[in-house]
Amino acid sequence: MSAKLSHINERGEAQMVDVGEKADTQRVAIAEGAIVMAPETYALIERGDAKKGDVIATARIAGIMAAKRTHELIPLCHPLQITKVSVDFEPLPNKAGLAECGLKVRAEVRVRGQTGVEMEALTAVSVACLTLYDMLKAVDRGMTIATVRVIEKAGGKSGNFIADDLQTSHQEES
Amino acid sequence: MSAKLSHINERGEAQMVDVGEKADTQRVAIAEGAIVMAPETYALIERGDAKKGDVIATARIAGIMAAKRTHELIPLCHPLQITKVSVDFEPLPNKAGLAECGLKVRAEVRVRGQTGVEMEALTAVSVACLTLYDMLKAVDRGMTIATVRVIEKAGGKSGNFIADDLQTSHQEES
Amino acid sequence: MSAKLSHINERGEAQMVDVGEKADTQRVAIAEGAIVMAPETYALIERGDAKKGDVIATARIAGIMAAKRTHELIPLCHPLQITKVSVDFEPLPNKAGLAECGLKVRAEVRVRGQTGVEMEALTAVSVACLTLYDMLKAVDRGMTIATVRVIEKAGGKSGNFIADDLQTSHQEES
Amino acid sequence: MSAKLSHINERGEAQMVDVGEKADTQRVAIAEGAIVMAPETYALIERGDAKKGDVIATARIAGIMAAKRTHELIPLCHPLQITKVSVDFEPLPNKAGLAECGLKVRAEVRVRGQTGVEMEALTAVSVACLTLYDMLKAVDRGMTIATVRVIEKAGGKSGNFIADDLQTSHQEES
Amino acid sequence: MSAKLSHINERGEAQMVDVGEKADTQRVAIAEGAIVMAPETYALIERGDAKKGDVIATARIAGIMAAKRTHELIPLCHPLQITKVSVDFEPLPNKAGLAECGLKVRAEVRVRGQTGVEMEALTAVSVACLTLYDMLKAVDRGMTIATVRVIEKAGGKSGNFIADDLQTSHQEES
Amino acid sequence: MSAKLSHINERGEAQMVDVGEKADTQRVAIAEGAIVMAPETYALIERGDAKKGDVIATARIAGIMAAKRTHELIPLCHPLQITKVSVDFEPLPNKAGLAECGLKVRAEVRVRGQTGVEMEALTAVSVACLTLYDMLKAVDRGMTIATVRVIEKAGGKSGNFIADDLQTSHQEES
Repeated sequence: MSAKLSHINERGEAQMVDVGEKADTQRVAIAEGAIVMAPETYALIERGDAKKGDVIATARIAGIMAAKRTHELIPLCHPLQITKVSVDFEPLPNKAGLAECGLKVRAEVRVRGQTGVEMEALTAVSVACLTLYDMLKAVDRGMTIATVRVIEKAGGKSGNFIADDLQTSHQEES
Repeated sequence: MSAKLSHINERGEAQMVDVGEKADTQRVAIAEGAIVMAPETYALIERGDAKKGDVIATARIAGIMAAKRTHELIPLCHPLQITKVSVDFEPLPNKAGLAECGLKVRAEVRVRGQTGVEMEALTAVSVACLTLYDMLKAVDRGMTIATVRVIEKAGGKSGNFIADDLQTSHQEES
Repeated sequence: MSAKLSHINERGEAQMVDVGEKADTQRVAIAEGAIVMAPETYALIERGDAKKGDVIATARIAGIMAAKRTHELIPLCHPLQITKVSVDFEPLPNKAGLAECGLKVRAEVRVRGQTGVEMEALTAVSVACLTLYDMLKAVDRGMTIATVRVIEKAGGKSGNFIADDLQTSHQEES
Repeated sequence: MSAKLSHINERGEAQMVDVGEKADTQRVAIAEGAIVMAPETYALIERGDAKKGDVIATARIAGIMAAKRTHELIPLCHPLQITKVSVDFEPLPNKAGLAECGLKVRAEVRVRGQTGVEMEALTAVSVACLTLYDMLKAVDRGMTIATVRVIEKAGGKSGNFIADDLQTSHQEES
Repeated sequence: MSAKLSHINERGEAQMVDVGEKADTQRVAIAEGAIVMAPETYALIERGDAKKGDVIATARIAGIMAAKRTHELIPLCHPLQITKVSVDFEPLPNKAGLAECGLKVRAEVRVRGQTGVEMEALTAVSVACLTLYDMLKAVDRGMTIATVRVIEKAGGKSGNFIADDLQTSHQEES
Repeated sequence: MSAKLSHINERGEAQMVDVGEKADTQRVAIAEGAIVMAPETYALIERGDAKKGDVIATARIAGIMAAKRTHELIPLCHPLQITKVSVDFEPLPNKAGLAECGLKVRAEVRVRGQTGVEMEALTAVSVACLTLYDMLKAVDRGMTIATVRVIEKAGGKSGNFIADDLQTSHQEES
């Protein structure tokens, strides 16, 4: 295990791995997630632009601010001078026959540094979803935060990454 | 919307709602979530007690510490003097025919205060899952954080809450 | 000086004064301030509701979050479990013959505790103004944050406070 | 608006703008502000060097520490490795016929980075003023924080900036 | 072990122990420590009141601010609304024949709450000493932070505590 | 004094010194310290691997996380993008005839930057020791944190440093 998990040394102990010798390169990571809610709750945030605006603006700001604090939350993350964060929201696709409602959240983080920003993107998505839960919980305690994951990553020695299902759909398109 | 969403005032603007008149009561919230990973990744954290110990101990500490900082992350959350946090991990149940592997994370938070601690429990679960992702991402970038939700809540004026599916199973048991 | 300035002891040294014997009472403080800008800058935030919404929503969230961190910023402030924060914005009054443009910011903070919340209200106003500066500085570096002050305070042993000029106008009204 | 306000995208939504392609250059920003108080309050901080020392030393430390946390307070500010912060205080000039008393606060911040440090300098000034208010409020609740603004900025693509009134006085001097 | 160490549960896992049922009582803790340095370094901070003032004022402020953040630093500490912090400095006693020079640091923390404040007092002392190290390290890298410990604690169910050697000296005095 | 203490300017005032012109170099600092406890307390953490694991794993994580927040705690420290932190523990050597028990803590921090990381290493050691105190205090309030100091430092203009006593032992070894 020690050979593979960079945050664990040969004695099985946690450590913040040395990235001091890695090159400063442009890196980007994109993560996404969703918050699933009752149709009535979703109707509430759809009704009236201004109001929806403030619910979503608050979640966006929370996600952006959380990305900057990732290294304070995740014990072995390196502090990074991230150069960009954006957090976007869109309605969950209504699959045929499925009454799933909610918002899809997508965060993109960029840095010029010695290590990647997957954790920053995942943290932005998670905290944006938690904020949506907080703002809507008075009407719906049964909401679920679902499928938070990295969908794309580029830059750095370990090579690019794109989520499996998205690779497939890319192929289908071509 | 303003009548129902306590964090949004009558003009649709975000606000930290006044809980000053609410009674100080004992409150508890339990949240859960999961991180789903490849069987090979899961095998890695199962192999050898000491090593697994440090991966999970790190995630537990991260979750506990994050619960205490919930009000810094979630814009409209009240600062609270939480009196207890625990974060537990167990293997995901292997459903018949399903190759789903990973860990289930469960956090319990208690407070004697004027508002509930759902957000603290959800934040503990989310950050514990993010930390697991961070510690295992060198071998598996395709992991997913799934189904983060409140499963139980007690104390306070809005009454107790128990997730729908868990209510059913309670009835079946009795 | 030591007899009068509670944060300075008899040797002239800074200290966090003991409020442990003070009663827990409902306390409120209201502060206000303004950001003054060029008319062209102001026109920009007035144009189009959605866009103005996000500029102001961001400043509001920043102010609310900063109020919760006042004790981390102001060395001798006590940590407090504030129960309410709201931050409001309105156009600066256009005095006759004066081309003064900008926004007035007003924050209200409440707590049930042993010490007042003036610093929390002032911090919310200051950080909301700083955020407006940040969001508009690409078009106007000459903006000024002006007249940040407490306008009202109630609860606690030291009695209520209302800013001098506002007292006068109250009398004139009656 | 989107074309001009860098923190707002084409849909009017807040974002942390990408500075990843900007050059690392030496940058400096100087901000100033003032806290205006009753003559009796000012007399108090003038009386006795040691005591005045601790009031001002506390405000200076608060300002320096706040500059380092600017990106945690201002939602769309980038984290920066600032290389210098200084915060200075001097008595407000007593203009003829005016009983204005108080302290002028001036902060200088430097960085070698991809974006400027105006917000860091403004935050240092604001928090230093807030700290002075906190330390003196037991004797004077009517103090006002006034005219917080950037007076000079150098480095970076957008060119140097110097406050209008200071440009004039420079010309008069030459 | 689980029966005795309150922060470790029966499975040997870390947890933030539940203090929700404990009574709110007045509690106080006093900790002390020292920083030992070369005589030349000590002479430097003794020379000139104003300069010594700023070195020590900075360390005092750092200690007070750190006490308020103890629960962010120490994973299983409860957040507390501490009501008083003071940090004092005095020259180390020059024992006969010993060339030991430096400063003794003493912190007192008070709270009305459900758990004690030893950790807050120890954290204040540690960070004050670290700050002294930082401010003096340009002339003396060999300084040592020594003997940080709790010397007194009162309030709460576990009873009062006074360090062994201090108990002896109390008896000798009586 | 001003000529020698870099954090104090010519007027004896605290300042964050300008490191903007210093070269970015690889830097490392190693600090150590100890927590001394009763033999019974030490026996407790020695008994059973898993349990000892969680006590020490918690202290390690706390030390690593604190290193990243050094600039928030120590007023004049520069924010740094540290590239590595490790914190190790070993039993205190049992000197002949001495009943001294406890753990020795050692932290190594690395950075590629314009200033050294002694403070980060010292902070990691201090907070790891404080965390051990917290986890063991239920059984032993008389523990002492001892001899926190820098033992090695390399990189940067001021040259390498190695603690005096360790230099001697190096010579003896050779």
